[in-house]
Amino acid sequence: MRRLTYPARIERRNGGCAETRLLDAMSAIVDRPAGRRPQGSADPLARLAQADMARVDALIHERMTSEVPVIPQLADHLVSAGGKRLRPLVAIAGGRILGGGGDGCLKLAAAVEFIHTATLLHDDVVDGSRLRRGKVAAHLIWGGASSVLVGDFLFARAFELMVDTGSMAALRILARASSVIAEGEVLQLTRAHDLNLDQDTYLEIIGAKTAELFAAAAEAGGISAGARPEQAAALRAYGMNLGLAFQLADDVLDYGGESGALGKNAGDDFREGKATLPLLLAIARSGPREAAFWERAVGRLEQTEADFRRAREIVIGVGALEATLDRAAEYAEAAKAALAGLSGGEWKAALETLADFSVSRTA
Amino acid sequence: MRRLTYPARIERRNGGCAETRLLDAMSAIVDRPAGRRPQGSADPLARLAQADMARVDALIHERMTSEVPVIPQLADHLVSAGGKRLRPLVAIAGGRILGGGGDGCLKLAAAVEFIHTATLLHDDVVDGSRLRRGKVAAHLIWGGASSVLVGDFLFARAFELMVDTGSMAALRILARASSVIAEGEVLQLTRAHDLNLDQDTYLEIIGAKTAELFAAAAEAGGISAGARPEQAAALRAYGMNLGLAFQLADDVLDYGGESGALGKNAGDDFREGKATLPLLLAIARSGPREAAFWERAVGRLEQTEADFRRAREIVIGVGALEATLDRAAEYAEAAKAALAGLSGGEWKAALETLADFSVSRTA
Repeated sequence: MRRLTYPARIERRNGGCAETRLLDAMSAIVDRPAGRRPQGSADPLARLAQADMARVDALIHERMTSEVPVIPQLADHLVSAGGKRLRPLVAIAGGRILGGGGDGCLKLAAAVEFIHTATLLHDDVVDGSRLRRGKVAAHLIWGGASSVLVGDFLFARAFELMVDTGSMAALRILARASSVIAEGEVLQLTRAHDLNLDQDTYLEIIGAKTAELFAAAAEAGGISAGARPEQAAALRAYGMNLGLAFQLADDVLDYGGESGALGKNAGDDFREGKATLPLLLAIARSGPREAAFWERAVGRLEQTEADFRRAREIVIGVGALEATLDRAAEYAEAAKAALAGLSGGEWKAALETLADFSVSRTA
Repeated sequence: MRRLTYPARIERRNGGCAETRLLDAMSAIVDRPAGRRPQGSADPLARLAQADMARVDALIHERMTSEVPVIPQLADHLVSAGGKRLRPLVAIAGGRILGGGGDGCLKLAAAVEFIHTATLLHDDVVDGSRLRRGKVAAHLIWGGASSVLVGDFLFARAFELMVDTGSMAALRILARASSVIAEGEVLQLTRAHDLNLDQDTYLEIIGAKTAELFAAAAEAGGISAGARPEQAAALRAYGMNLGLAFQLADDVLDYGGESGALGKNAGDDFREGKATLPLLLAIARSGPREAAFWERAVGRLEQTEADFRRAREIVIGVGALEATLDRAAEYAEAAKAALAGLSGGEWKAALETLADFSVSRTA
């Protein structure tokens, strides 16, 4: 039987008592002036990978075709909406940083984006989300059934792309990532409204549902370039920590961002009663004063229109967003540190800047 | 761009004008005395494969475990309800008939059952089915979201099992089958209420959604035993024709069977407005007399309680069930003929008997 290993992994990085340290760190954090965290950017990586990404984009469009018209229509609705394509970028960087980046790496990058897109389609059905990448969610146009089945199609096509690379090692990494992602999604679903969710479980959830695919992308990219085991492990650690930082920042944006810039609705997590770190910290810090509010609005999911504004005020007021971003910045630092043993010049620098961006981004 | 190739395959078998011949054959068919079709059985294959299937069953239970409790609970609800396990049986037979059937073959058999189970979970959500394998459908107990996500999990675990076999050829076959299945499901969904569905498209749908997995199971089993290309093609042709016969009989049972024996609700296809062959034939044969009934009950899906009984009477009255079973029997014969070039003794005989069973079964 396989255990989800994220808490253990995080624990090792923190020296053996992750949860305690996390709780200590969080209760000690007070809001500090903005701007003290490094400003990152995804642009250097996007520029370096521009030619590669054009080929990945062509592969994506080529492989999502089908004689059944609704499949490319529905898939293209999401694909052409853009998104940052961070996961395939990370896969390409994983190959390029080791001097690779050939045809196999591009196919793996496209496969990673297909897995991600399939996950988004299923997530939006599961969550009843209304907006995705600034467009009406696909299930609201084509129905939940089509979204589920087109997700299945893209997932299968991802594996066909992987088979085309001929790399059994990459297949193993991405097959495992796919089952871990599903486990993370189910865990989140079953614990969604739990006001008493411990932060260890929260990290397990985001490690599985988000960070695992970044880790697998970086590692599989490296494998396509003939990574030695320690190089593969370094790339995996980079992706895992990047993914944790990315998701923590995402959870912050759900309370702090604007729907227009996000491309999805701010407040969705709260309205679904998702116990993300900003919410868990706000519940802990606002104490008995707000206990009845949280119990009603999140625990029983009985919400009024005004509740999200109130929740947001509490979350910001107790410093939960800043505390979460501090935590994200720690993971971003860990991501950069994981690359220490790799050379790779401009690709390495671009991945470092991307790690900072995962925290500093505003959308 | 890849085309769905089922009509072409069927066409080749029928000598170049599948649709015309099919329509001719159907309009020419009159009900003949029952009992003229061979009585088959799944028992000989189940007996031969008993020890193998015990190991497949152990693998299935081992690989569906997870630290997230709802995953094995939900999966076991479906898995422990049994079902005939025809697809893994066919995979095992594909290996054994060529003198193989080792560890890799068993893993592929378990992977095939996982893909099938994932498909059932998603189908039942998509169709809103209430009963599956004689039990309440999983989505009615755990919710549609869990069914979707646990389906994703099982699908991913299927690929992990395939990776464990180390056979890239088998992975290619089953990855392709998975995307074809999803295409077939979407095609069915988008054409579901179409009273004018042509029978070529109907065969394309059942070829993709059902027969492809039988074909892939047989072929992948053969590949695990080192099949030569013509042996792999023969096994694939067996599985494809078996699957077509199986689905045609399934569509008949939806009108002719009893819910208790079926383990799912008789009449589900009609209530969902699915344009299966019995319905298409009944619409064509009952002519203008019943056009308004079909248009209301299937076209607009405005049904009363009594409508299924009326539909069933018409379907049986015009001989549509017998005609569909005749068509199924043709595919069963084609399945047996596909094995002609293979030796394989008792395994071959068991597959032949299984082909007849796919038509003669009553549940």
